[in-house]
Amino acid sequence: MIRKYTIGNPIPTASVVTRIEAEEGALPGWTVDRAGKALSYRMQENDLVYGLGETVRGMNKRGWIYTSDNTDDPFHLEEKKSLYASQNFIMLLGENALFGLYVDTPGVVHFDIGFTDYSTLTIRFDDFDADIYLITEGTPRRIVKELRGLTGRSYIPPKWAFGYGQSRWGYLTADDVRKVVDTYRKEDIPVDSVYLDIDYMEKYKDFTINEETFPSFGDFVAEMKEQGVHLVPIIDAGVKIEEGYSVYEEGVRNKYFVTKEDGSELVAAVWPGRVHFPDFLNTQARKWFGRCYSFLLDKGIDGFWNDMNEPSIFFTEDRLQDVFRKMENYRGRNLGIRELSEFKGLVLSLANNRDDYKSFYHNYDGVRVRHDKVHNIYGFQMTRAAGEAFEELCPDKRILIFSRSSYIGMHRYAGVWTGDNRSWWSHIRLNIQQMPALNMCGFLYSGADTGGFGADVTEDLLMRWLGVSIFMPLFRNHSELNTRFQEFYRFPKVRQFRDLIRLRYALLPYIYSEFMKAALGDDMYALPLAFVYGDDERARRVEDQLLIGESIMIAPVYEQNAVGRYVYLPEDMKLIRFRAYNDYDEEILPDGDHFIPLKLNEAAVFLRKGHCLPFADLSASPDPVRSADDAFACPLKYITFDARPEDYLRYDDDGITRI
Amino acid sequence: MIRKYTIGNPIPTASVVTRIEAEEGALPGWTVDRAGKALSYRMQENDLVYGLGETVRGMNKRGWIYTSDNTDDPFHLEEKKSLYASQNFIMLLGENALFGLYVDTPGVVHFDIGFTDYSTLTIRFDDFDADIYLITEGTPRRIVKELRGLTGRSYIPPKWAFGYGQSRWGYLTADDVRKVVDTYRKEDIPVDSVYLDIDYMEKYKDFTINEETFPSFGDFVAEMKEQGVHLVPIIDAGVKIEEGYSVYEEGVRNKYFVTKEDGSELVAAVWPGRVHFPDFLNTQARKWFGRCYSFLLDKGIDGFWNDMNEPSIFFTEDRLQDVFRKMENYRGRNLGIRELSEFKGLVLSLANNRDDYKSFYHNYDGVRVRHDKVHNIYGFQMTRAAGEAFEELCPDKRILIFSRSSYIGMHRYAGVWTGDNRSWWSHIRLNIQQMPALNMCGFLYSGADTGGFGADVTEDLLMRWLGVSIFMPLFRNHSELNTRFQEFYRFPKVRQFRDLIRLRYALLPYIYSEFMKAALGDDMYALPLAFVYGDDERARRVEDQLLIGESIMIAPVYEQNAVGRYVYLPEDMKLIRFRAYNDYDEEILPDGDHFIPLKLNEAAVFLRKGHCLPFADLSASPDPVRSADDAFACPLKYITFDARPEDYLRYDDDGITRI
Repeated sequence: MIRKYTIGNPIPTASVVTRIEAEEGALPGWTVDRAGKALSYRMQENDLVYGLGETVRGMNKRGWIYTSDNTDDPFHLEEKKSLYASQNFIMLLGENALFGLYVDTPGVVHFDIGFTDYSTLTIRFDDFDADIYLITEGTPRRIVKELRGLTGRSYIPPKWAFGYGQSRWGYLTADDVRKVVDTYRKEDIPVDSVYLDIDYMEKYKDFTINEETFPSFGDFVAEMKEQGVHLVPIIDAGVKIEEGYSVYEEGVRNKYFVTKEDGSELVAAVWPGRVHFPDFLNTQARKWFGRCYSFLLDKGIDGFWNDMNEPSIFFTEDRLQDVFRKMENYRGRNLGIRELSEFKGLVLSLANNRDDYKSFYHNYDGVRVRHDKVHNIYGFQMTRAAGEAFEELCPDKRILIFSRSSYIGMHRYAGVWTGDNRSWWSHIRLNIQQMPALNMCGFLYSGADTGGFGADVTEDLLMRWLGVSIFMPLFRNHSELNTRFQEFYRFPKVRQFRDLIRLRYALLPYIYSEFMKAALGDDMYALPLAFVYGDDERARRVEDQLLIGESIMIAPVYEQNAVGRYVYLPEDMKLIRFRAYNDYDEEILPDGDHFIPLKLNEAAVFLRKGHCLPFADLSASPDPVRSADDAFACPLKYITFDARPEDYLRYDDDGITRI
Repeated sequence: MIRKYTIGNPIPTASVVTRIEAEEGALPGWTVDRAGKALSYRMQENDLVYGLGETVRGMNKRGWIYTSDNTDDPFHLEEKKSLYASQNFIMLLGENALFGLYVDTPGVVHFDIGFTDYSTLTIRFDDFDADIYLITEGTPRRIVKELRGLTGRSYIPPKWAFGYGQSRWGYLTADDVRKVVDTYRKEDIPVDSVYLDIDYMEKYKDFTINEETFPSFGDFVAEMKEQGVHLVPIIDAGVKIEEGYSVYEEGVRNKYFVTKEDGSELVAAVWPGRVHFPDFLNTQARKWFGRCYSFLLDKGIDGFWNDMNEPSIFFTEDRLQDVFRKMENYRGRNLGIRELSEFKGLVLSLANNRDDYKSFYHNYDGVRVRHDKVHNIYGFQMTRAAGEAFEELCPDKRILIFSRSSYIGMHRYAGVWTGDNRSWWSHIRLNIQQMPALNMCGFLYSGADTGGFGADVTEDLLMRWLGVSIFMPLFRNHSELNTRFQEFYRFPKVRQFRDLIRLRYALLPYIYSEFMKAALGDDMYALPLAFVYGDDERARRVEDQLLIGESIMIAPVYEQNAVGRYVYLPEDMKLIRFRAYNDYDEEILPDGDHFIPLKLNEAAVFLRKGHCLPFADLSASPDPVRSADDAFACPLKYITFDARPEDYLRYDDDGITRI
């Protein structure tokens, strides 16, 4: 059951689709501190708190403080409070309490989950205006289902989007892309998509193509489709200020950009240099921007990723000028340490400055709203623009779309990736821990940049990361300009990479089936053990194992030089140690603790008792499997544990028609 | 056996005390690439590589690249290649090879331990000049013993330095310190020392006291001694440029500071603002600087920590002026993204700039040497200045001294702490992994800043960190200005903190005995399991358990919200689950894998079969135990496992006389 409580006068977020009448009186079990703009709840010693989507630290968020304040920050360190998204849903799995709490407000919220005081859960607001939804049901998954009912069904991508996607910032020309695709084909490694980072555009202008480096783009898209490869271009939030650039001129003409106090357009800078930001909170602007995607749809593009939409700001023109003025005071002076750090502070204050978010305004369908009051829904509304446009432009066809910044409600329109992570072993673990938290909030189509975006990858890290990524709906390898090359064929163990990626393709019938069952059933695809084995004290505490759909559990290795790992089995399970879809051994293990030896190229799957794992017999394919379609065309095999193949209810469809 | 091979003409480092004739010919088993200035060795699949002291990642260094290039960098991330120290000793524990390799050169060295190619260990030099010592003996500990024989016996601190030390940047006055000590006494938490960070000095000038904030310092030192507390002031490398400041004036008069090409003193900036750096490679300058410590010794001080001695540089005057000149080019211009990042780059290039290390020179006993050629021994020579002075000024008495920057050889004069870490769970694990690597290189007196220096601590993180720190020779709690207060009495669970710190004191007779046996026997105090159970494939791979001395193993919990952890026992052991020195339970466990439940306030000790753990019965103390001396005055108790108390050979002495 869901109860709604309204505090103050919250600005609407478009997050909720099911209207509920707000109840009178206070949130039961919570203390309200109006002066402190806070709600607090007393936790028991063994209460666990899950949720908050894409945040740092463990699955159990207890012990740290998290701030919903969308931020472009690639250093996902333990100490960080804010990342790219605001997913304000928490679930308390208590000794004698179980509830979900969704805090719907577009402003800044602080979740102090036992940081200041281990026994106290405090939710503090910058502005004390919010709709609070308290969900109390029988089980964690029921609570998730209720939240989904409240906020809407999860986005469903096309089937090909479950194939492997290769990405890198630095594919500068169509030939660079061709070379990548050719090499994957030559190496017999399946790939369904190649991502185009900012370099495909003309001077980083949205909805343009650099004709010199990507000539006759439409033909190129078709050529790649011939190869079974979908090109997925990036779209950034900022629109370049440039005379003659139609998107810019239309936006200005129609007042579709955010404005400063004086009514003039905000001038900020990101990749293209000076830009204006579209006012995605303005319905007309949103419709206009959405229609702009047709420029690429018309060229045969059927997938996009929206980026820089926190929005990320390198600097605003006003602040830059101000900084230069202030710098004058330091010229020629004999700088002491304090002056120097002030001086450095000035320069470092240019990017993503909180005060800049207070310097511009939206036309929120007639109401003028200062950006910082609605900051956390900006990326959501950008991606909603795309999603709504696709429904209108391609009413029958699914389009791939995911975003970096997000807010609950965006899950109806798109997926998310976990942003610019790094090639750190600790980020493999973070990937494992973020997935179920994202699923709870409705974001089912998600995954991390496999191998890590920033810093230099190593072959062993990339291989181990596959142990997670081959089970994730969004399976992409992405890396930053000037880091070590990260395509799988760059390494000596290319055969082992090929085998694990083929395993992913063999598992697609299961992965897709479980994803769709979760999407259509308002359920989760990746679950913490605590959600299924809630009475098992040990299982409740497991932070590095996941249930993937109804049949299997994974326990990936995420430590350098490890030759295996400890795994907790809440029940008897059948270990399937995969080296390839057609090379694995099976072993039935009793419940309890086990040290499982796992070679670098081995991915462990734990099959639950009474369940089946269907997978495609790729060897039956006439030609080498190179795409998701090829895999789905193969006959199925089943690995079972005290079950019959027909016990598994498999979902399938054409994978492209909107449903 | 040790064999020496000399490449080129290495600059001496004072690291080695035992002369060995260099052999003709090439290093057996290694390939020399003169053009590439590199040595390489082919590794087998299961070869482990240990060593390199204070570096990131695991005990087994395989898979990453490490650069010896002393750097002040508080973000000890997985991707970092250089930290504060250069400890160029590695040990290969191979499938069919076992050797130690000590690379003695004061310049930059890169250890590519399977990063570029997992099978290749490459040692690359910026300058191809080095003495290479190849040590081949029967066991890892024998190899360590040989290295110690080559480089000298490890530093031995006074006994009180094994007590607890409280530190924080931000104790601004003597009263602040009194308040800290009073509160520890009031809370009945033992403490032997309080550290004085940069604030005790007058304008951050070495060998001065701020008379306003720390009036009549000598009396204050005596007053604290009355309380059983030793004050341990910090000494920085840079000497403030200030007319009338005797240290500065003596240095200039005698040409004891490093100079630029033109012969004038380098002007750099650190905490005091503009400073000169003493030329610690100049024997006269070193003697002079060492004698300066008497200013504080004469006031009763008997412990010091040397800091900022990489040397850390906030900026050099020349570069600052250059940056300002270059900035002129950006004024008023319509900065594009490239120009802005250049501009930011200029400002960020001010600190610890590699080129600045090429801009000044040492008078290395008559020979003019550019700093970058000897960069990695600068901190060593600063601390050697102190150590040699103490031998001269206090011939009979041990003085506590440890340093941030170091190089092998410095271990004869001082200990090290692991520098400015952060309040991260991953840094507890890093602490566990760095200790044995430091021990191998001779640094026995060592430890990390318990609770983490930077970022905000949490009570549970601090409590779990104690599970490591109470077993480490250097046991200090240190935190950064403007972070959350971190003294143990700041938290609700003060009783549990008290009990664990008292446990440390109860264990002092064992800790001191094992430390001294390791120091006098050229052995290690904290050992990886691989060094003792080398034939056990599982034990060889354990990265998060340590043997502490001859009797015990520790397996600390380092994960947030964990209620226990997995432990691998290479042999039957007796688990002692301590909540306090007088509150514990014992359980004999068979060898193999175990999940050990451990509450937040429980520290697990695993007693080896046939061994004893002596500990002081603090309850027999007439007054509450407040210092190491009090603990050593208590009668001993023993916990045994198939052994008799008399089987334990305990070392003890007066703890203060030099030996």
